[in-house]
Amino acid sequence: MSEQGHFDEKPPLEDQPAGEHWNAEEFRRRGYQVIDWLARYFETVESLPVCSQIEPGEIFAALPEHPPASGEPFEAILADLDKIVMPGITHWQHPSWFAYFNANTSGPSILADLVSSGLGVQGMLWQTSPACTEVETRMLDWLVELLGLPDTFLSTGEGGGVIQDTASSATLCALVAARERATNFEVDRSGVDGPLAVYASKEAHSSVEKSVRIAGIGQRNLRLIDTDDDLRMDPGALRVAIDADRDAGITPVMVVATIGTTATTAIDPVRKIAEVCFKSGIWLHADAAHAGTAAVLEEMRWIHDGLELVDSYCFNPHKWMFVNFDCNAFWVRDRSALVRALSVLPEYLRNSATESGKVIDYRDWHIPLGRRFRSLKLWFTMRHYGVKGLRRYISEHISWAGELEERVLEHPDLELAAPRTVNLVCLRHRLGDEATRQLIETVNADGTMFVTHAAVKDCHVMRICIGGTTTGKEHVDRAWQRIDSAARKLG
Amino acid sequence: MSEQGHFDEKPPLEDQPAGEHWNAEEFRRRGYQVIDWLARYFETVESLPVCSQIEPGEIFAALPEHPPASGEPFEAILADLDKIVMPGITHWQHPSWFAYFNANTSGPSILADLVSSGLGVQGMLWQTSPACTEVETRMLDWLVELLGLPDTFLSTGEGGGVIQDTASSATLCALVAARERATNFEVDRSGVDGPLAVYASKEAHSSVEKSVRIAGIGQRNLRLIDTDDDLRMDPGALRVAIDADRDAGITPVMVVATIGTTATTAIDPVRKIAEVCFKSGIWLHADAAHAGTAAVLEEMRWIHDGLELVDSYCFNPHKWMFVNFDCNAFWVRDRSALVRALSVLPEYLRNSATESGKVIDYRDWHIPLGRRFRSLKLWFTMRHYGVKGLRRYISEHISWAGELEERVLEHPDLELAAPRTVNLVCLRHRLGDEATRQLIETVNADGTMFVTHAAVKDCHVMRICIGGTTTGKEHVDRAWQRIDSAARKLG
Repeated sequence: MSEQGHFDEKPPLEDQPAGEHWNAEEFRRRGYQVIDWLARYFETVESLPVCSQIEPGEIFAALPEHPPASGEPFEAILADLDKIVMPGITHWQHPSWFAYFNANTSGPSILADLVSSGLGVQGMLWQTSPACTEVETRMLDWLVELLGLPDTFLSTGEGGGVIQDTASSATLCALVAARERATNFEVDRSGVDGPLAVYASKEAHSSVEKSVRIAGIGQRNLRLIDTDDDLRMDPGALRVAIDADRDAGITPVMVVATIGTTATTAIDPVRKIAEVCFKSGIWLHADAAHAGTAAVLEEMRWIHDGLELVDSYCFNPHKWMFVNFDCNAFWVRDRSALVRALSVLPEYLRNSATESGKVIDYRDWHIPLGRRFRSLKLWFTMRHYGVKGLRRYISEHISWAGELEERVLEHPDLELAAPRTVNLVCLRHRLGDEATRQLIETVNADGTMFVTHAAVKDCHVMRICIGGTTTGKEHVDRAWQRIDSAARKLG
Repeated sequence: MSEQGHFDEKPPLEDQPAGEHWNAEEFRRRGYQVIDWLARYFETVESLPVCSQIEPGEIFAALPEHPPASGEPFEAILADLDKIVMPGITHWQHPSWFAYFNANTSGPSILADLVSSGLGVQGMLWQTSPACTEVETRMLDWLVELLGLPDTFLSTGEGGGVIQDTASSATLCALVAARERATNFEVDRSGVDGPLAVYASKEAHSSVEKSVRIAGIGQRNLRLIDTDDDLRMDPGALRVAIDADRDAGITPVMVVATIGTTATTAIDPVRKIAEVCFKSGIWLHADAAHAGTAAVLEEMRWIHDGLELVDSYCFNPHKWMFVNFDCNAFWVRDRSALVRALSVLPEYLRNSATESGKVIDYRDWHIPLGRRFRSLKLWFTMRHYGVKGLRRYISEHISWAGELEERVLEHPDLELAAPRTVNLVCLRHRLGDEATRQLIETVNADGTMFVTHAAVKDCHVMRICIGGTTTGKEHVDRAWQRIDSAARKLG
């Protein structure tokens, strides 16, 4: 996939010897080559099978057993990228990717990330590269406005936002802050003493359980609350569970409300859950990893109803907002609770800016110490698209999902497996799980599209998520034709 | 810093309207622009003040309060990158960067990261992009050979390696695995019950304390063990502390040995520490975040003496091995202990490859679920430089540090503040802390170089770390001239 045509117009240059640091000119030449390679990839990805067809171990075996003794020419590396690596790529950026949730991206975001890689600055402290901190703070404030999130999250008040790698890490940080608040920092000092409990719906993401285990609270102390017919957490059942724990001497620490569950994008009733939490003084974290992006549209902001009452919230611009991975946006309404739980200040990091109290040191807002300049991706993306451009594309995805839902409702052999809330349609074959399994297998079989499954109310279900950057109406239509035809054959 | 000259040779193209997805041709044009911008940055960075001179809040204030309603031209974004962001950059890639530890990078690594951003694949499961997993497994095996690490870490045995974002996260993962092993997974099920303890030297990194707090073990249960005159952990004191805890009914969970402490790169005696741990069945984690890279040189492998006895180990190619952030390489000798502690498998992630048991799913090796294709950076970098190229540059850094050390030893007004082990020299003024403080301030004052401080045996100390990609002998010499001259004036 590499292409060098562009260089024909330039006077030939001597290659710098492999094994040596590149000078700026060599970087430029090689940079053009990789940009060309990627441009060609974007042009051709649609013609590739969405899913890699290789067998376990093939790529591992194709790579030499030992690192090279001497440096190799850049052309050899790019050639192996095509030959060895590309057959093992499952193409998340394929226009007919409808699997899991998207991890979409965009040209401006990719180039912003390139600037970040090149500048190579560390933003662990304000002092270590002030722009890395201040652009991030402003971008997280922009996102509050873009999504119509409550002012409680703005950095200009008591709250504030930070970029985490993933929603998993955001949940863990929320949990640590919640736990310290609930125990008045006894855990921080002396370790967990006596049982604590965490609450989320049965449909919540697996990262809640993972966080509970990492934090040492124990899987048995995660209460998975029942959901209603639409797979939304039942606030009444939540209250009962909290009361029972209190009666048993167990300290409730945090409730996680999911705004857009992984299986079906069900939206938990945040306002009602918040009322339960508020009464008991329990930290409420809202996880809108995928669905949050929908709120760029005013008509979709109902998904965030009650959000002014939560303690923390996150969504992933790296899923559906054209910002490449990793970029999870995480806010708290009381930044001091988060910072107190995560701050450690050794001598070698002391500096006058930190001591002035006038700056944010983001290392105190997450697990890692080091951090790269990720907010550039948000800046480039929001500026390139503008609010209007983002709304246009997100609105298209949701409306195409709506049309697909209509088609399912009208189909003789298919049925909706769950209500559609944003850009995900869940369907099943009327003949049951085995037919649905076969349906998924059939539509995925020739590699022109890719959908995945979930379990919904103990049924096997096909999920179709429409959120790719390059996905057009025609790709959704073609997917539907395959689904329709396969379903009729089974029916 | 943007430069468009290159495009003069091409037929003029219409700009795609701002706010729309780019086609491949637009990506190519804009990509060249950003490559040019970075090449120009590399050419000019030496002429910029190392540290940003801005005041807290300046950049935040210079950015508009609201996201733009409509998309903006790419030229406007690049112009603001120069105007607003660059004055707030502290240049970690400046050749006269001697502060903290380096976070160095290289052309091949930056371009590999660009490929990763562009492909935009998720490697949470083998299934979701097999190459992302298998290249990583092979690269971590290559690193074992490159650094002469024990075979116990190879993926072909019971162990294996994984890329984490930072050493902080690696420590936390090691701690979670260690804790579950020590408590026979009681914590995993029911939460921490009864006090646990963790051990590290007084010179260990702050991330050990942070991990202990996040895991709910409590800061009081972190034992900071005394060090010897050379600031290395005292294995005798460690044994005493462990015995005392056992006598008091406290369960020892993990010992962290530091191979290259942050203040002075002291090397803990891993073999002796391992003997203590082995007897008590305590998990031993070795953190070589910065210094590990030195082991590309056979004559430096003494730093890893005893490593075949540890349970887990990590170092950061993103510090000193010309791989851009983030890339921490973390190994365990028993991967099942790690995976058992971190694995959660919901229905929507089930797949036949996972169930076959023939593949690695790296999401079970760290905190996040999503993961990008970071091993490309290791692949491009190791192939471009080869073992020989890496040895050459690392060896230069160490030998320049050695020469600097000699100069300090011969200087009338300066003294070494700690033994030099790799590429870090710690010195102080003979007149004491205040003079050392002034010395640091003076050499940093005109922005042509940057060093930071540490506390060593209650003294204020200047640290000079020599590990920049663009740092040459001449930069070290110039830094020495400034230090020498400032020291004499104070003296």
